[in-house]
Amino acid sequence: MMSGTELARAIVDQAAHRAADYEKHTGRKPCLATVIVGDDPASVTYVRMKRNRCHRAGLDSRLVSLPEETTTEQLVAAITELSNDPEVHGILLQHPVPKHVDERAAFEAIAPDKDVDGVTMHSFAQMSFGEAGFTSCTPGGIMRLLDAYDVDPRGKHAVVIGRSPILGKPVAMLLLARDATVTICHSKTENLPDVVRTADIVVAAVGKPEFVRGDWIKPGAVVIDAGYNEGNVGDVAFDEAVGKASLITPVPGGVGPTTIAVLLEQTVDSAQRQLAAL
Amino acid sequence: MMSGTELARAIVDQAAHRAADYEKHTGRKPCLATVIVGDDPASVTYVRMKRNRCHRAGLDSRLVSLPEETTTEQLVAAITELSNDPEVHGILLQHPVPKHVDERAAFEAIAPDKDVDGVTMHSFAQMSFGEAGFTSCTPGGIMRLLDAYDVDPRGKHAVVIGRSPILGKPVAMLLLARDATVTICHSKTENLPDVVRTADIVVAAVGKPEFVRGDWIKPGAVVIDAGYNEGNVGDVAFDEAVGKASLITPVPGGVGPTTIAVLLEQTVDSAQRQLAAL
Repeated sequence: MMSGTELARAIVDQAAHRAADYEKHTGRKPCLATVIVGDDPASVTYVRMKRNRCHRAGLDSRLVSLPEETTTEQLVAAITELSNDPEVHGILLQHPVPKHVDERAAFEAIAPDKDVDGVTMHSFAQMSFGEAGFTSCTPGGIMRLLDAYDVDPRGKHAVVIGRSPILGKPVAMLLLARDATVTICHSKTENLPDVVRTADIVVAAVGKPEFVRGDWIKPGAVVIDAGYNEGNVGDVAFDEAVGKASLITPVPGGVGPTTIAVLLEQTVDSAQRQLAAL
Repeated sequence: MMSGTELARAIVDQAAHRAADYEKHTGRKPCLATVIVGDDPASVTYVRMKRNRCHRAGLDSRLVSLPEETTTEQLVAAITELSNDPEVHGILLQHPVPKHVDERAAFEAIAPDKDVDGVTMHSFAQMSFGEAGFTSCTPGGIMRLLDAYDVDPRGKHAVVIGRSPILGKPVAMLLLARDATVTICHSKTENLPDVVRTADIVVAAVGKPEFVRGDWIKPGAVVIDAGYNEGNVGDVAFDEAVGKASLITPVPGGVGPTTIAVLLEQTVDSAQRQLAAL
Protein backbone atom coordinates (compact mmCIF):
# COMPACT_ATOMS: atom_id res chain seq x y z
CA MET A 1 0.00 0.00 0.00
CA MET A 2 1.10 3.55 -0.79
CA SER A 3 2.58 5.55 2.09
CA GLY A 4 1.71 9.19 2.65
CA THR A 5 5.13 10.07 1.29
CA GLU A 6 4.53 8.06 -1.88
CA LEU A 7 1.08 9.50 -2.37
CA ALA A 8 2.50 13.00 -1.92
CA ARG A 9 5.19 12.25 -4.48
CA ALA A 10 2.57 11.12 -6.99
CA ILE A 11 0.55 14.32 -6.46
CA VAL A 12 3.65 16.50 -6.76
CA ASP A 13 4.83 14.67 -9.90
CA GLN A 14 1.53 15.45 -11.59
CA ALA A 15 1.66 19.06 -10.42
CA ALA A 16 5.24 19.35 -11.74
CA HIS A 17 4.11 18.00 -15.09
CA ARG A 18 1.32 20.58 -15.29
CA ALA A 19 3.66 23.34 -14.10
CA ALA A 20 6.04 22.49 -16.95
CA ASP A 21 3.12 22.64 -19.38
CA TYR A 22 2.12 26.00 -18.00
CA GLU A 23 5.66 27.31 -18.43
CA LYS A 24 5.81 26.05 -22.01
CA HIS A 25 2.64 27.96 -22.84
CA THR A 26 3.31 31.17 -20.93
CA GLY A 27 7.08 31.43 -20.44
CA ARG A 28 6.38 31.81 -16.71
CA LYS A 29 6.19 29.41 -13.80
CA PRO A 30 3.24 29.15 -11.40
CA CYS A 31 4.24 31.27 -8.42
CA LEU A 32 3.52 30.78 -4.73
CA ALA A 33 4.09 33.76 -2.45
CA THR A 34 4.88 32.86 1.14
CA VAL A 35 4.46 35.41 3.91
CA ILE A 36 6.14 34.92 7.25
CA VAL A 37 6.00 37.27 10.22
CA GLY A 38 8.77 37.02 12.82
CA ASP A 39 11.43 34.36 13.04
CA ASP A 40 9.97 31.43 14.93
CA PRO A 41 12.43 28.64 14.08
CA ALA A 42 9.76 26.01 13.31
CA SER A 43 7.95 28.43 10.99
CA VAL A 44 11.19 29.38 9.27
CA THR A 45 11.89 25.69 8.68
CA TYR A 46 8.39 25.02 7.30
CA VAL A 47 8.63 27.97 4.95
CA ARG A 48 12.05 26.91 3.70
CA MET A 49 10.76 23.37 3.13
CA LYS A 50 7.72 24.60 1.20
CA ARG A 51 9.86 26.85 -0.97
CA ASN A 52 12.28 24.00 -1.70
CA ARG A 53 9.41 21.77 -2.73
CA CYS A 54 8.12 24.53 -5.01
CA HIS A 55 11.46 24.85 -6.76
CA ARG A 56 11.93 21.11 -7.15
CA ALA A 57 8.48 20.87 -8.75
CA GLY A 58 9.24 23.68 -11.18
CA LEU A 59 7.22 26.39 -9.41
CA ASP A 60 8.46 29.85 -8.56
CA SER A 61 8.25 31.08 -5.02
CA ARG A 62 8.38 34.56 -3.62
CA LEU A 63 9.23 35.13 0.02
CA VAL A 64 7.85 38.06 1.99
CA SER A 65 9.55 38.05 5.37
CA LEU A 66 8.22 40.62 7.82
CA PRO A 67 9.57 41.54 11.26
CA GLU A 68 7.98 40.33 14.49
CA GLU A 69 6.63 43.82 15.26
CA THR A 70 4.58 44.03 12.01
CA THR A 71 1.09 45.37 12.70
CA THR A 72 -2.14 43.87 11.41
CA GLU A 73 -2.50 46.82 9.04
CA GLN A 74 0.99 46.36 7.62
CA LEU A 75 0.47 42.63 7.17
CA VAL A 76 -2.92 43.16 5.51
CA ALA A 77 -1.30 45.72 3.18
CA ALA A 78 1.50 43.31 2.23
CA ILE A 79 -0.96 40.50 1.51
CA THR A 80 -3.30 42.80 -0.42
CA GLU A 81 -0.37 43.76 -2.65
CA LEU A 82 0.20 40.07 -3.42
CA SER A 83 -3.53 39.59 -4.02
CA ASN A 84 -3.37 42.32 -6.65
CA ASP A 85 -0.14 41.13 -8.27
CA PRO A 86 -0.92 39.23 -11.49
CA GLU A 87 2.41 37.37 -11.27
CA VAL A 88 1.42 35.71 -8.00
CA HIS A 89 -0.88 32.67 -8.29
CA GLY A 90 -1.04 31.51 -4.71
CA ILE A 91 -0.57 33.10 -1.30
CA LEU A 92 0.40 31.31 1.87
CA LEU A 93 0.53 33.08 5.23
CA GLN A 94 2.59 30.94 7.57
CA HIS A 95 0.66 30.13 10.74
CA PRO A 96 0.94 31.18 13.54
CA VAL A 97 1.44 34.93 13.35
CA PRO A 98 2.55 36.91 16.45
CA LYS A 99 -0.16 37.28 19.08
CA HIS A 100 -0.68 41.01 18.51
CA VAL A 101 -1.70 40.40 14.89
CA ASP A 102 -5.31 39.68 13.90
CA GLU A 103 -4.71 36.47 11.94
CA ARG A 104 -8.27 36.30 10.61
CA ALA A 105 -7.99 39.81 9.14
CA ALA A 106 -4.70 38.81 7.52
CA PHE A 107 -6.16 35.60 6.07
CA GLU A 108 -9.12 37.55 4.67
CA ALA A 109 -6.73 39.81 2.75
CA ILE A 110 -5.88 36.81 0.57
CA ALA A 111 -7.87 37.01 -2.68
CA PRO A 112 -10.18 33.97 -2.77
CA ASP A 113 -8.82 32.95 -6.18
CA LYS A 114 -5.28 32.83 -4.75
CA ASP A 115 -6.18 31.09 -1.50
CA VAL A 116 -4.22 27.93 -2.33
CA ASP A 117 -3.79 27.16 1.39
CA GLY A 118 -7.59 27.20 1.87
CA VAL A 119 -7.68 29.50 4.90
CA THR A 120 -10.20 32.18 3.95
CA MET A 121 -13.81 32.21 5.08
CA HIS A 122 -14.74 32.01 1.40
CA SER A 123 -12.83 28.75 0.93
CA PHE A 124 -14.31 27.33 4.11
CA ALA A 125 -17.84 28.04 2.91
CA GLN A 126 -17.03 26.52 -0.48
CA MET A 127 -15.81 23.33 1.19
CA SER A 128 -18.89 23.31 3.41
CA PHE A 129 -21.35 23.77 0.58
CA GLY A 130 -19.63 21.47 -1.90
CA GLU A 131 -18.79 24.35 -4.23
CA ALA A 132 -15.68 24.19 -6.40
CA GLY A 133 -12.74 25.96 -4.80
CA PHE A 134 -9.57 25.47 -2.82
CA THR A 135 -9.50 23.08 0.12
CA SER A 136 -7.49 23.68 3.27
CA CYS A 137 -4.30 21.75 2.52
CA THR A 138 -4.20 19.32 5.44
CA PRO A 139 -7.91 18.41 5.14
CA GLY A 140 -7.43 18.10 1.39
CA GLY A 141 -4.45 15.81 1.97
CA ILE A 142 -6.48 13.69 4.39
CA MET A 143 -9.23 13.19 1.81
CA ARG A 144 -6.61 12.18 -0.77
CA LEU A 145 -5.20 9.64 1.69
CA LEU A 146 -8.65 8.16 2.28
CA ASP A 147 -9.16 7.89 -1.47
CA ALA A 148 -5.75 6.31 -1.98
CA TYR A 149 -6.61 3.73 0.66
CA ASP A 150 -10.08 3.09 -0.80
CA VAL A 151 -11.80 4.26 2.38
CA ASP A 152 -15.26 5.45 1.39
CA PRO A 153 -16.59 7.73 4.17
CA ARG A 154 -20.20 7.28 3.03
CA GLY A 155 -22.43 6.28 5.93
CA LYS A 156 -19.41 5.82 8.20
CA HIS A 157 -19.12 7.55 11.56
CA ALA A 158 -16.19 9.95 11.40
CA VAL A 159 -15.03 11.52 14.65
CA VAL A 160 -12.87 14.61 14.27
CA ILE A 161 -10.95 15.64 17.39
CA GLY A 162 -10.19 19.34 17.11
CA ARG A 163 -12.12 22.27 15.69
CA SER A 164 -9.56 24.72 14.34
CA PRO A 165 -10.59 26.84 11.34
CA ILE A 166 -7.95 25.31 9.05
CA LEU A 167 -8.05 21.69 10.15
CA GLY A 168 -10.81 20.32 12.35
CA LYS A 169 -13.72 22.29 10.94
CA PRO A 170 -12.86 21.98 7.23
CA VAL A 171 -12.02 18.26 7.44
CA ALA A 172 -15.37 17.73 9.17
CA MET A 173 -17.11 19.54 6.31
CA LEU A 174 -15.23 17.59 3.63
CA LEU A 175 -16.12 14.29 5.33
CA LEU A 176 -19.75 15.41 5.55
CA ALA A 177 -19.72 16.28 1.85
CA ARG A 178 -18.63 12.68 1.24
CA ASP A 179 -21.65 11.45 3.22
CA ALA A 180 -19.97 10.51 6.50
CA THR A 181 -21.88 11.01 9.73
CA VAL A 182 -19.55 13.48 11.40
CA THR A 183 -18.94 14.21 15.07
CA ILE A 184 -16.76 17.17 16.01
CA CYS A 185 -15.03 16.87 19.41
CA HIS A 186 -12.83 19.32 21.29
CA SER A 187 -11.47 20.29 24.67
CA LYS A 188 -14.98 20.65 26.18
CA THR A 189 -16.20 17.25 24.98
CA GLU A 190 -17.32 14.99 27.82
CA ASN A 191 -16.26 11.32 27.78
CA LEU A 192 -14.05 11.84 24.75
CA PRO A 193 -12.60 8.28 24.80
CA ASP A 194 -16.14 6.85 24.64
CA VAL A 195 -17.05 9.09 21.72
CA VAL A 196 -13.90 8.09 19.83
CA ARG A 197 -14.71 4.42 20.50
CA THR A 198 -17.81 4.80 18.30
CA ALA A 199 -15.77 6.02 15.31
CA ASP A 200 -15.20 4.14 12.06
CA ILE A 201 -12.84 6.94 11.03
CA VAL A 202 -10.86 8.96 13.58
CA VAL A 203 -9.15 12.21 12.60
CA ALA A 204 -6.84 13.43 15.35
CA ALA A 205 -6.16 17.14 15.01
CA VAL A 206 -5.49 18.21 18.56
CA GLY A 207 -1.84 19.22 18.63
CA LYS A 208 -1.04 17.19 21.75
CA PRO A 209 1.56 14.41 21.54
CA GLU A 210 0.10 10.89 21.80
CA PHE A 211 -3.16 12.29 23.14
CA VAL A 212 -5.35 9.60 21.55
CA ARG A 213 -4.69 6.25 23.23
CA GLY A 214 -4.91 2.78 21.74
CA ASP A 215 -7.87 1.73 23.87
CA TRP A 216 -9.94 4.61 22.38
CA ILE A 217 -9.80 2.96 18.97
CA LYS A 218 -12.59 0.65 17.85
CA PRO A 219 -11.10 -2.51 16.32
CA GLY A 220 -10.86 -2.05 12.58
CA ALA A 221 -11.20 1.74 12.62
CA VAL A 222 -9.29 3.98 10.22
CA VAL A 223 -7.04 6.38 12.15
CA ILE A 224 -5.75 9.55 10.53
CA ASP A 225 -3.15 11.33 12.63
CA ALA A 226 -3.01 14.98 11.58
CA GLY A 227 -0.91 15.99 14.59
CA TYR A 228 2.65 17.08 14.29
CA ASN A 229 4.23 17.81 17.63
CA GLU A 230 7.76 18.52 18.76
CA GLY A 231 10.08 15.58 18.24
CA ASN A 232 8.15 14.28 15.21
CA VAL A 233 5.37 12.86 17.36
CA GLY A 234 1.74 12.65 16.27
CA ASP A 235 -1.51 13.09 18.21
CA VAL A 236 -2.05 9.33 18.38
CA ALA A 237 -0.10 6.82 20.49
CA PHE A 238 0.93 4.93 17.38
CA ASP A 239 2.36 1.83 19.06
CA GLU A 240 -0.84 1.30 21.03
CA ALA A 241 -3.22 2.07 18.17
CA VAL A 242 -1.50 0.20 15.36
CA GLY A 243 -2.78 -3.19 16.55
CA LYS A 244 -6.39 -1.99 16.77
CA ALA A 245 -6.74 0.09 13.61
CA SER A 246 -7.31 -1.42 10.19
CA LEU A 247 -5.31 1.49 8.86
CA ILE A 248 -3.31 4.21 10.58
CA THR A 249 -1.19 7.04 9.21
CA PRO A 250 2.23 7.42 10.82
CA VAL A 251 3.95 10.64 11.90
CA PRO A 252 6.10 11.58 10.10
CA GLY A 253 5.35 10.30 6.61
CA GLY A 254 1.56 10.26 6.80
CA VAL A 255 -0.59 13.39 6.53
CA GLY A 256 2.34 15.85 6.54
CA PRO A 257 3.73 15.24 3.05
CA THR A 258 0.27 15.26 1.45
CA THR A 259 -0.36 18.72 2.94
CA ILE A 260 2.49 20.27 1.00
CA ALA A 261 1.59 18.26 -2.09
CA VAL A 262 -1.93 19.72 -2.07
CA LEU A 263 -0.47 23.21 -1.63
CA LEU A 264 1.66 22.83 -4.75
CA GLU A 265 -1.16 21.23 -6.72
CA GLN A 266 -3.54 24.06 -5.85
CA THR A 267 -0.95 26.67 -6.82
CA VAL A 268 -0.75 25.09 -10.28
CA ASP A 269 -4.57 24.90 -10.37
CA SER A 270 -4.71 28.62 -9.63
CA ALA A 271 -2.21 29.50 -12.36
CA GLN A 272 -4.12 27.43 -14.90
CA ARG A 273 -7.46 28.91 -13.89
CA GLN A 274 -6.07 32.42 -14.18
CA LEU A 275 -4.88 31.53 -17.68
CA ALA A 276 -8.25 30.06 -18.62
CA ALA A 277 -9.97 33.24 -17.40
CA LEU A 278 -7.94 35.47 -19.76
CA MET B 1 -41.95 28.48 31.01
CA MET B 2 -41.96 30.69 27.96
CA SER B 3 -43.35 29.18 24.76
CA GLY B 4 -41.69 29.73 21.40
CA THR B 5 -44.50 32.13 20.57
CA GLU B 6 -43.93 34.14 23.75
CA LEU B 7 -40.17 34.23 23.23
CA ALA B 8 -40.73 35.41 19.67
CA ARG B 9 -43.07 38.12 20.90
CA ALA B 10 -40.44 39.34 23.36
CA ILE B 11 -37.80 39.49 20.60
CA VAL B 12 -40.16 41.29 18.24
CA ASP B 13 -41.22 43.77 20.94
CA GLN B 14 -37.60 44.75 21.46
CA ALA B 15 -37.00 45.00 17.72
CA ALA B 16 -40.12 47.18 17.38
CA HIS B 17 -38.85 49.45 20.13
CA ARG B 18 -35.50 49.84 18.36
CA ALA B 19 -37.22 50.33 14.99
CA ALA B 20 -39.24 53.20 16.50
CA ASP B 21 -36.02 54.70 17.82
CA TYR B 22 -34.45 54.38 14.40
CA GLU B 23 -37.42 56.09 12.80
CA LYS B 24 -37.29 58.93 15.33
CA HIS B 25 -33.64 59.57 14.47
CA THR B 26 -33.80 59.13 10.71
CA GLY B 27 -37.39 59.71 9.64
CA ARG B 28 -37.25 56.33 7.93
CA LYS B 29 -38.14 52.81 8.96
CA PRO B 30 -35.80 49.82 8.76
CA CYS B 31 -36.72 48.14 5.48
CA LEU B 32 -36.77 44.46 4.57
CA ALA B 33 -36.94 43.59 0.88
CA THR B 34 -38.51 40.23 0.13
CA VAL B 35 -37.94 38.53 -3.21
CA ILE B 36 -40.22 35.76 -4.38
CA VAL B 37 -39.98 33.86 -7.66
CA GLY B 38 -43.12 32.13 -8.94
CA ASP B 39 -46.37 31.66 -7.09
CA ASP B 40 -46.01 28.56 -4.94
CA PRO B 41 -48.94 28.96 -2.51
CA ALA B 42 -46.92 28.07 0.61
CA SER B 43 -44.20 30.55 -0.34
CA VAL B 44 -46.75 33.26 -1.06
CA THR B 45 -48.25 32.67 2.39
CA TYR B 46 -44.86 32.80 4.13
CA VAL B 47 -43.95 36.02 2.37
CA ARG B 48 -47.28 37.62 3.24
CA MET B 49 -46.84 36.56 6.87
CA LYS B 50 -43.31 37.97 7.05
CA ARG B 51 -44.43 41.27 5.53
CA ASN B 52 -47.33 41.52 7.96
CA ARG B 53 -44.98 40.93 10.89
CA CYS B 54 -42.70 43.65 9.53
CA HIS B 55 -45.51 46.18 9.37
CA ARG B 56 -46.82 45.32 12.82
CA ALA B 57 -43.34 45.84 14.26
CA GLY B 58 -42.94 49.21 12.56
CA LEU B 59 -40.64 48.05 9.77
CA ASP B 60 -41.09 48.82 6.09
CA SER B 61 -41.15 46.00 3.61
CA ARG B 62 -40.64 45.98 -0.10
CA LEU B 63 -41.91 43.13 -2.22
CA VAL B 64 -40.18 42.05 -5.40
CA SER B 65 -42.36 39.41 -7.03
CA LEU B 66 -40.85 37.76 -10.09
CA PRO B 67 -42.50 35.35 -12.53
CA GLU B 68 -41.82 31.59 -12.46
CA GLU B 69 -39.78 31.80 -15.67
CA THR B 70 -37.23 34.28 -14.23
CA THR B 71 -33.66 33.27 -15.12
CA THR B 72 -30.76 33.09 -12.71
CA GLU B 73 -29.27 36.17 -14.37
CA GLN B 74 -32.48 38.16 -13.97
CA LEU B 75 -32.84 37.13 -10.32
CA VAL B 76 -29.21 37.97 -9.58
CA ALA B 77 -29.72 41.37 -11.23
CA ALA B 78 -32.84 42.09 -9.15
CA ILE B 79 -31.09 41.12 -5.91
CA THR B 80 -27.95 43.09 -6.82
CA GLU B 81 -30.13 46.16 -7.29
CA LEU B 82 -31.49 45.71 -3.76
CA SER B 83 -27.95 45.15 -2.46
CA ASN B 84 -26.98 48.52 -3.89
CA ASP B 85 -30.08 50.37 -2.73
CA PRO B 86 -29.30 52.41 0.41
CA GLU B 87 -32.97 52.39 1.42
CA VAL B 88 -32.99 48.61 1.79
CA HIS B 89 -31.51 47.22 5.02
CA GLY B 90 -32.24 43.56 4.69
CA ILE B 91 -32.87 41.17 1.81
CA LEU B 92 -34.76 37.90 1.98
CA LEU B 93 -34.99 35.53 -0.97
CA GLN B 94 -37.88 33.17 -0.31
CA HIS B 95 -36.78 29.56 -0.50
CA PRO B 96 -37.24 27.47 -2.64
CA VAL B 97 -36.76 29.09 -6.03
CA PRO B 98 -37.84 27.28 -9.22
CA LYS B 99 -35.59 24.35 -10.14
CA HIS B 100 -34.06 26.03 -13.20
CA VAL B 101 -32.64 28.84 -11.04
CA ASP B 102 -29.20 28.56 -9.39
CA GLU B 103 -30.25 29.36 -5.82
CA ARG B 104 -26.68 29.61 -4.53
CA ALA B 105 -25.82 32.23 -7.16
CA ALA B 106 -28.94 34.18 -6.17
CA PHE B 107 -28.11 33.99 -2.45
CA GLU B 108 -24.58 35.20 -3.13
CA ALA B 109 -25.96 38.33 -4.81
CA ILE B 110 -27.17 39.45 -1.39
CA ALA B 111 -24.69 41.95 0.06
CA PRO B 112 -23.21 40.37 3.22
CA ASP B 113 -24.20 43.43 5.28
CA LYS B 114 -27.86 43.00 4.22
CA ASP B 115 -27.98 39.23 4.64
CA VAL B 116 -30.50 39.35 7.49
CA ASP B 117 -31.72 35.83 6.63
CA GLY B 118 -28.18 34.48 7.03
CA VAL B 119 -28.02 32.52 3.78
CA THR B 120 -24.78 33.69 2.16
CA MET B 121 -21.52 31.77 2.29
CA HIS B 122 -20.07 34.77 4.09
CA SER B 123 -22.63 34.56 6.90
CA PHE B 124 -22.09 30.81 7.16
CA ALA B 125 -18.35 31.25 7.59
CA GLN B 126 -18.95 33.98 10.18
CA MET B 127 -21.18 31.65 12.18
CA SER B 128 -18.63 28.87 11.82
CA PHE B 129 -15.67 30.96 12.96
CA GLY B 130 -17.49 32.83 15.74
CA GLU B 131 -17.20 36.14 13.93
CA ALA B 132 -19.83 38.83 14.41
CA GLY B 133 -22.45 38.72 11.68
CA PHE B 134 -25.95 37.57 10.81
CA THR B 135 -27.10 34.11 11.78
CA SER B 136 -29.37 31.99 9.65
CA CYS B 137 -32.78 32.78 11.14
CA THR B 138 -33.97 29.31 12.16
CA PRO B 139 -30.62 28.33 13.71
CA GLY B 140 -30.52 31.73 15.41
CA GLY B 141 -34.04 31.15 16.74
CA ILE B 142 -33.05 27.72 18.03
CA MET B 143 -30.11 29.17 19.97
CA ARG B 144 -32.44 31.79 21.47
CA LEU B 145 -34.84 29.03 22.54
CA LEU B 146 -32.01 27.11 24.22
CA ASP B 147 -30.96 30.27 26.04
CA ALA B 148 -34.52 31.03 27.09
CA TYR B 149 -34.80 27.51 28.49
CA ASP B 150 -31.41 27.74 30.25
CA VAL B 151 -30.01 24.86 28.22
CA ASP B 152 -26.24 25.31 28.12
CA PRO B 153 -24.87 23.27 25.18
CA ARG B 154 -21.35 23.23 26.65
CA GLY B 155 -19.94 19.69 26.76
CA LYS B 156 -23.33 18.25 25.77
CA HIS B 157 -23.73 15.91 22.83
CA ALA B 158 -25.89 17.62 20.23
CA VAL B 159 -27.15 15.56 17.31
CA VAL B 160 -28.37 17.53 14.32
CA ILE B 161 -30.47 15.57 11.83
CA GLY B 162 -30.21 17.30 8.47
CA ARG B 163 -27.39 19.14 6.73
CA SER B 164 -28.99 21.86 4.63
CA PRO B 165 -26.98 25.05 4.09
CA ILE B 166 -29.50 27.24 5.93
CA LEU B 167 -30.50 24.94 8.77
CA GLY B 168 -28.56 21.77 9.59
CA LYS B 169 -25.07 23.02 8.88
CA PRO B 170 -25.36 26.45 10.49
CA VAL B 171 -27.12 25.18 13.63
CA ALA B 172 -24.34 22.60 13.97
CA MET B 173 -21.77 25.38 13.78
CA LEU B 174 -23.60 27.57 16.29
CA LEU B 175 -23.87 24.65 18.73
CA LEU B 176 -20.16 23.93 18.24
CA ALA B 177 -19.34 27.58 18.94
CA ARG B 178 -21.19 27.14 22.23
CA ASP B 179 -18.95 24.15 23.05
CA ALA B 180 -21.33 21.30 22.32
CA THR B 181 -19.92 18.07 20.89
CA VAL B 182 -21.81 18.04 17.61
CA THR B 183 -22.81 15.15 15.38
CA ILE B 184 -24.31 15.89 11.97
CA CYS B 185 -26.60 13.16 10.60
CA HIS B 186 -28.40 12.88 7.26
CA SER B 187 -30.02 10.51 4.81
CA LYS B 188 -26.84 8.41 4.45
CA THR B 189 -26.33 7.97 8.21
CA GLU B 190 -26.31 4.33 9.30
CA ASN B 191 -28.23 3.35 12.44
CA LEU B 192 -29.70 6.81 12.83
CA PRO B 193 -31.97 5.87 15.77
CA ASP B 194 -28.93 4.62 17.71
CA VAL B 195 -27.02 7.81 17.02
CA VAL B 196 -29.97 9.95 18.13
CA ARG B 197 -30.22 7.83 21.33
CA THR B 198 -26.80 9.19 22.38
CA ALA B 199 -27.94 12.82 22.13
CA ASP B 200 -28.41 15.23 25.03
CA ILE B 201 -29.78 17.74 22.52
CA VAL B 202 -31.60 16.66 19.35
CA VAL B 203 -32.25 19.11 16.53
CA ALA B 204 -34.60 17.64 13.94
CA ALA B 205 -34.26 19.44 10.62
CA VAL B 206 -35.22 16.78 8.12
CA GLY B 207 -38.45 17.99 6.56
CA LYS B 208 -40.25 14.66 7.01
CA PRO B 209 -43.40 14.51 9.16
CA GLU B 210 -42.94 12.68 12.49
CA PHE B 211 -39.69 11.15 11.23
CA VAL B 212 -38.03 11.08 14.66
CA ARG B 213 -39.78 8.55 16.90
CA GLY B 214 -40.18 8.60 20.66
CA ASP B 215 -37.98 5.56 21.24
CA TRP B 216 -35.05 7.40 19.60
CA ILE B 217 -35.02 9.93 22.44
CA LYS B 218 -32.76 9.43 25.44
CA PRO B 219 -34.71 10.06 28.65
CA GLY B 220 -34.18 13.67 29.67
CA ALA B 221 -32.93 14.89 26.30
CA VAL B 222 -33.79 18.31 24.92
CA VAL B 223 -35.65 18.00 21.62
CA ILE B 224 -35.81 20.90 19.18
CA ASP B 225 -38.19 20.29 16.31
CA ALA B 226 -37.23 22.55 13.41
CA GLY B 227 -39.49 20.73 10.97
CA TYR B 228 -42.56 22.26 9.48
CA ASN B 229 -44.46 19.92 7.23
CA GLU B 230 -47.83 20.03 5.55
CA GLY B 231 -50.69 20.03 8.01
CA ASN B 232 -48.67 21.81 10.71
CA VAL B 233 -46.73 18.68 11.60
CA GLY B 234 -43.13 18.69 12.83
CA ASP B 235 -40.26 16.28 12.21
CA VAL B 236 -40.71 14.67 15.62
CA ALA B 237 -43.54 12.37 16.71
CA PHE B 238 -44.47 14.76 19.49
CA ASP B 239 -46.92 12.51 21.36
CA GLU B 240 -44.31 9.75 21.60
CA ALA B 241 -41.37 11.99 22.46
CA VAL B 242 -43.02 14.29 24.98
CA GLY B 243 -42.83 11.71 27.75
CA LYS B 244 -39.13 11.03 27.20
CA ALA B 245 -37.75 14.51 26.64
CA SER B 246 -37.02 16.94 29.47
CA LEU B 247 -37.97 19.68 27.05
CA ILE B 248 -39.49 19.57 23.58
CA THR B 249 -40.57 22.34 21.22
CA PRO B 250 -43.99 21.88 19.65
CA VAL B 251 -45.01 22.47 16.04
CA PRO B 252 -46.53 24.96 15.54
CA GLY B 253 -45.56 27.46 18.21
CA GLY B 254 -41.96 26.35 18.81
CA VAL B 255 -39.10 27.14 16.47
CA GLY B 256 -41.25 28.74 13.74
CA PRO B 257 -42.17 32.02 15.44
CA THR B 258 -38.61 32.60 16.65
CA THR B 259 -37.38 32.32 13.05
CA ILE B 260 -39.39 35.33 11.93
CA ALA B 261 -38.52 37.18 15.14
CA VAL B 262 -34.79 36.81 14.42
CA LEU B 263 -35.39 37.99 10.84
CA LEU B 264 -37.00 41.21 12.07
CA GLU B 265 -34.38 41.72 14.76
CA GLN B 266 -31.54 41.34 12.29
CA THR B 267 -33.19 43.77 9.87
CA VAL B 268 -33.20 46.38 12.63
CA ASP B 269 -29.59 45.46 13.50
CA SER B 270 -28.66 46.05 9.87
CA ALA B 271 -30.37 49.45 9.74
CA GLN B 272 -28.64 50.53 12.95
CA ARG B 273 -25.22 49.30 11.77
CA GLN B 274 -25.64 51.15 8.49
CA LEU B 275 -26.42 54.30 10.47
CA ALA B 276 -23.42 53.78 12.75
CA ALA B 277 -21.18 53.37 9.70
CA LEU B 278 -22.17 56.76 8.25
